Amino acid sequence: MRLSRYFLPILKENPREAEIISHRLMLRAGMIRQQGQGSFTMLPLGKKVLDKVCAIIREEQNRAGALEILMPTIQSAELWRESGRYDAYGKEMLRIKDRQDRELLYGPTNEEMVTEIFRSYVKSYKDLPLNLYHIQWKFRDEVRPRFGVMRGREFLMKDAYSFDIDYESAKAAYFRMFVAYLRTFTRMGLQAIPMRADTGPIGGDLSHEFIILAETGESQVFCNKDFLDLAVPGEDVDFGNDAEIAGIVAKWTAPYAATDEMHDEAAWAGVAEADRLSARGIEVGHIFHFGEKYSKPMGARVQGPDGKEHNVSMGSYGIGPTRLIAAIIEASHDEAGIIWPESVAPFDIGLINMKAGDADCDCACETLYAALTSAGKDVLYDDTDQRAGGKFATADLIGLPWQVIVGPRGVAAGEVEIKNRKTGERETAPLATVAQRFGAAA
Amino acid sequence: MRLSRYFLPILKENPREAEIISHRLMLRAGMIRQQGQGSFTMLPLGKKVLDKVCAIIREEQNRAGALEILMPTIQSAELWRESGRYDAYGKEMLRIKDRQDRELLYGPTNEEMVTEIFRSYVKSYKDLPLNLYHIQWKFRDEVRPRFGVMRGREFLMKDAYSFDIDYESAKAAYFRMFVAYLRTFTRMGLQAIPMRADTGPIGGDLSHEFIILAETGESQVFCNKDFLDLAVPGEDVDFGNDAEIAGIVAKWTAPYAATDEMHDEAAWAGVAEADRLSARGIEVGHIFHFGEKYSKPMGARVQGPDGKEHNVSMGSYGIGPTRLIAAIIEASHDEAGIIWPESVAPFDIGLINMKAGDADCDCACETLYAALTSAGKDVLYDDTDQRAGGKFATADLIGLPWQVIVGPRGVAAGEVEIKNRKTGERETAPLATVAQRFGAAA
Repeated sequence: MRLSRYFLPILKENPREAEIISHRLMLRAGMIRQQGQGSFTMLPLGKKVLDKVCAIIREEQNRAGALEILMPTIQSAELWRESGRYDAYGKEMLRIKDRQDRELLYGPTNEEMVTEIFRSYVKSYKDLPLNLYHIQWKFRDEVRPRFGVMRGREFLMKDAYSFDIDYESAKAAYFRMFVAYLRTFTRMGLQAIPMRADTGPIGGDLSHEFIILAETGESQVFCNKDFLDLAVPGEDVDFGNDAEIAGIVAKWTAPYAATDEMHDEAAWAGVAEADRLSARGIEVGHIFHFGEKYSKPMGARVQGPDGKEHNVSMGSYGIGPTRLIAAIIEASHDEAGIIWPESVAPFDIGLINMKAGDADCDCACETLYAALTSAGKDVLYDDTDQRAGGKFATADLIGLPWQVIVGPRGVAAGEVEIKNRKTGERETAPLATVAQRFGAAA
Repeated sequence: MRLSRYFLPILKENPREAEIISHRLMLRAGMIRQQGQGSFTMLPLGKKVLDKVCAIIREEQNRAGALEILMPTIQSAELWRESGRYDAYGKEMLRIKDRQDRELLYGPTNEEMVTEIFRSYVKSYKDLPLNLYHIQWKFRDEVRPRFGVMRGREFLMKDAYSFDIDYESAKAAYFRMFVAYLRTFTRMGLQAIPMRADTGPIGGDLSHEFIILAETGESQVFCNKDFLDLAVPGEDVDFGNDAEIAGIVAKWTAPYAATDEMHDEAAWAGVAEADRLSARGIEVGHIFHFGEKYSKPMGARVQGPDGKEHNVSMGSYGIGPTRLIAAIIEASHDEAGIIWPESVAPFDIGLINMKAGDADCDCACETLYAALTSAGKDVLYDDTDQRAGGKFATADLIGLPWQVIVGPRGVAAGEVEIKNRKTGERETAPLATVAQRFGAAA
């Protein structure tokens, strides 16, 4: 993409309304625009990151056996009355009436709807396990939306729902999502630590929040440093093997980890002082087993191998992709701007023409642009007539992993400079080898 | 994907509520489930088709120079008061109040919001042309939603918005979208004919509906048969060349074509009788130049090369991806079910194990499944214990382009049957060559 044909509205000033660094950087880097209270447009750069984040989420959901569907945003009040939540949900639910005065709502979540889908079609244990997920907009009418996309009113959510014949199978389904989440966050360059969460009136121990450590985190967390060395399973992990998956979960739930809310001073005292890590954290995922909470009142039953009807045992599994973008930035930035992990970077490479209009620089850049693009790299080519200083600042701000810098002196010597955004390391490379260095065939 | 692990709720009976064939087939093939009046969940098979349709739309929008963003579904009434449409829009607009009694609405379209984004950032003609699009849910509170996803209340729409310094540039932008639409529909196996549409109070001749011919079409259309032989530009078409693009548009607007609404009997009489095609049509796209309708009241101005402020000249360009799925089915089905064009088929190949549980059949299928998958084919492997007859019916109903049929007698002879869903042609092929036939390396 040529920057001259792109829409990248960089802000020079720090926007006053932004309290946290990710919000500030997303506004400054032209990723988002606020449209209303807690409501944002993803501008082209933001949309590209969102697509990468969603693609990773999808791949890991699919790998773990979940199936993607897409439910509507607007739901009927009737459905929520079946579970009893229509009256219970309170003011965070955006309630709507249509032209025929029917009561609707903008879904804050989809347990009722997906349970309705399930009960309409699935009648036998033979069709289980089943896990259906979608990535769809949600609306929660928060009193005080803030921190940009970190806590919006309209936000994107991946929500998966598992259906199983009994608790043991539901636990295996829960564990699969647990492992899928470990892989998802790791692939985005995040170190996420699963922490036992409050299961509320349902009880049990099957609820975890996935927390990433970041100085600007919203909550205080406590965990054993052992987490930092735990291996995340590779893509060859066998989701068909319940024992293998349970083994991974056992390892990842053995060391102490708790949010402020669930913190247990006695257990914490049992952790050797040198192993204690007390830090700020950001919740990036939440998984939850809730058993028959919806299947029972809504009549989601299957016939078991015993010939009897069983209420299915359910769980739900959420990740907020828009929030995740902010979390990644909180965890990975410096004073100059964002530092994208390669897996979610909006472009792989920023190609900087230091003197657009200079025939040699233009020619070298065009050649590189074509070669890198045909090598499968997604390149943002800064072909504008801005001054070099401004171009460098923009490149650092938007945080592409690599910068290829083409200037008149270098071109005369047949060389370009390659800068790694993360380490800041610069190297000089012969023009002719740049494309190969980024994966083009020799 | 193994069918035993998939969620494909086939309906045996014809659903009573479905009046048209696409609605009936989408329900029967387990692609959609109705959730409320004019509101549908895309089930896994439907979601896969939707993804393919959206991917083609995106590729052609991007090729034509449009940039993808993502605006929220909920908008503020305030914004719509700026254009005067809040009061004018009528009951089709879903009006909402939040917990602080602020007036909101579920966007039926996004002209106001995108104009607000534009005016916030773009100040100079040097940043033009600009075309921003998104694919996002819309809500229009129709009195009588019907025909499944063909006319829903909540539906997905790709809407693009172009911004230019003057009418001439806006016309060039309009022509680029015109050509992008020709390519988009052709790639989905549709023959779409652009027909001049009513421009309403704005006047001018820059509004076209793209209509596909289908017996079950909603409206009567009249056109010259010459359209059926017109070449659609290839992917090497140069969107940077205004003259080339205008030439294509000239060719595609020369023969007579009109919807009932715009039909001109006098001009029609001038078409030779043998060239007249009078048929039913379905609108699949609508493009529209509306000049300063929003830029003027909303103050979307740029400085021109003359140093003066100019209201930008705008156009909008819509395609409904969910509706498009129905249109494709209307245009491509037979009595047994859907016939997907390869480009939008949910899977490339249906692999049918006629006798699951038979060791030889299972082994042959597993080998084929692995080989076809690693050749990059998306395969739905029917490994269920259903009877062969039922499997054939399902395969025809869901309409995958190819069926590879593995039965005990064939396997004993080292052969499988390959069926082309569209032509119905069957051939026998040696087991060992099947993967190669579908593109695997020898």
